[in-house]
Amino acid sequence: MKFATLADSSLDGRLLLVSRDLQQACDASDLAPHLLHAVQHWTAVAPALQQRYDDLNAARVKGAFALAPEQLLAPLPRSPQWCDGSAFLNHGRLMERAFNTPPIPEFDTVPVMYQGASDDFLGPCADVPLPSEADGIDFEGEFGVVLDEVSLGTPAEQALDRVRLLVQINDWSLRALGPREMKSGFGFLQAKPSSSFAPVAITPDELGPHWHNGRVHLSLQVHWNQQWFGHPHGREMNFGFHELIAHAARTRRLSAGTIIGSGTVSNVQRDVGSSCIAERRVIELLDHGEIRTGFMRFGDRVRMEACAPEGGSGPFGVIDQRVIAKSRGA
Amino acid sequence: MKFATLADSSLDGRLLLVSRDLQQACDASDLAPHLLHAVQHWTAVAPALQQRYDDLNAARVKGAFALAPEQLLAPLPRSPQWCDGSAFLNHGRLMERAFNTPPIPEFDTVPVMYQGASDDFLGPCADVPLPSEADGIDFEGEFGVVLDEVSLGTPAEQALDRVRLLVQINDWSLRALGPREMKSGFGFLQAKPSSSFAPVAITPDELGPHWHNGRVHLSLQVHWNQQWFGHPHGREMNFGFHELIAHAARTRRLSAGTIIGSGTVSNVQRDVGSSCIAERRVIELLDHGEIRTGFMRFGDRVRMEACAPEGGSGPFGVIDQRVIAKSRGA
Repeated sequence: MKFATLADSSLDGRLLLVSRDLQQACDASDLAPHLLHAVQHWTAVAPALQQRYDDLNAARVKGAFALAPEQLLAPLPRSPQWCDGSAFLNHGRLMERAFNTPPIPEFDTVPVMYQGASDDFLGPCADVPLPSEADGIDFEGEFGVVLDEVSLGTPAEQALDRVRLLVQINDWSLRALGPREMKSGFGFLQAKPSSSFAPVAITPDELGPHWHNGRVHLSLQVHWNQQWFGHPHGREMNFGFHELIAHAARTRRLSAGTIIGSGTVSNVQRDVGSSCIAERRVIELLDHGEIRTGFMRFGDRVRMEACAPEGGSGPFGVIDQRVIAKSRGA
Repeated sequence: MKFATLADSSLDGRLLLVSRDLQQACDASDLAPHLLHAVQHWTAVAPALQQRYDDLNAARVKGAFALAPEQLLAPLPRSPQWCDGSAFLNHGRLMERAFNTPPIPEFDTVPVMYQGASDDFLGPCADVPLPSEADGIDFEGEFGVVLDEVSLGTPAEQALDRVRLLVQINDWSLRALGPREMKSGFGFLQAKPSSSFAPVAITPDELGPHWHNGRVHLSLQVHWNQQWFGHPHGREMNFGFHELIAHAARTRRLSAGTIIGSGTVSNVQRDVGSSCIAERRVIELLDHGEIRTGFMRFGDRVRMEACAPEGGSGPFGVIDQRVIAKSRGA
């Protein structure tokens, strides 16, 4: 199934089902008012949602309409938790050089993960208001999973059973603020403003063999101001989502609707490019002795789409956003 | 006003008003179904809540009943964000010695703050299920504020206008897990299981002159297994809540219901004791050359109560909890 969320007057928005090809949508709020409710009551509501999804794909739903991504919120405009890993170790190692931070202890064997804000996610086409270009505005392309409730202490080998949905994320980052927050030991706070999500959240079966071993086996196409920036592949994730879930649940219960992120998609092979600017900058420094690329400016756009292996539109749709100036206190 | 939350079948519980002396309570869910709703619609609902609160204190509410803290959830069983500062620098400096971590950059001038989980707060008398005594189970007594919506970039001088409620918190910590997470730069995740809250959240006017300069001017009485452990005072907070709020809102909007914490209450004067075990341990090491106090064991209890300056019960009520073993996957 594929789900999207239409803006309305509520904090959670209104649930839509979206056809497999992302062309058509229909209301599903009579079955579950919003996507968080559907995840919280999955066993009860999934069969009826599946039936309507099948009908939508067969063009049997009266009142279906053309999907308009610019009207969509994030699939979950708010969620109980957002825990973002850094499971592509290639990215982490480059960032250590970029930030000149000491090596992370046990980086190869214990996932690293930060807790992010989960109250104010942005939709796929929403403008991104930020206070200053001097903060080092950067995008980070990622994949994520949306979970049903996970008990404290759930082991990795049972964790994938709790995955209800897959999502594609832009984890906005402010690079001028990150190093100080890392050095404080308290982790990212100002350096991580609201994250953005691709239009649809999908059940894992939608990816067929491309959801495998707790990883999204797709490449992530990233364009910055209509220029190709990278298309790194998800298969190089060094920890699978099952390992990230078990890490997050080691000392806490995860509420239904919790989102776990992969961290920036990053590959060892350099000609596939990057899914964040900071990584390109450190590669420039290593390869050419100087940084050639600046961070984003107000008015800049970033576009992210996971590649459909069969061609055509990506399974999650497209993130296409513009960064704008947010004036103080406005 | 004083608010509490009665357990029911919902995630947010049911709103109660509680008399000033914490003896009586009455249902207020006809005015706002739960406390988060009240904070989200404060201007609309506060006058009617104030009227009923006045009636309750004057024994004019039919159906009022004796408050039973063991039936209460946290005042906000879940909230949009939980951002916890470390604004008592005496605590931070002792922790640097305890964890043997490098000095935090700009510690005197820029607040440090971590993002915690906010989906699963514990009530004042709830058992605290944790996976292992070997994790170094510790309590941390704190104060906190519950905010109305705060715009991105709100300056400190306007921030206290957004404070709706004050709360008293036990920010449970697992000390064996903290140092590695601090060294990763990603901050606390496994080291911070669900936090617990005192029975009532109160409007700032309830403290009279003891809410001053963005600080709670009360001492926090802490007992571990019925033994006095400390009574440090809130006035030594080096950053006020207005500064913590501005710090959190520097690059993000804060949704109504966001909770900002003070960090562990800690005083320079050592004979007032501590509000966490880790601090006592490092003081023992400094004063006696050896650590004499272990962390909590399953079955241990901790009791926390902010001292009412006039004597009698503390304005927030009492946190009194027991730590228990949570078996893996149970």
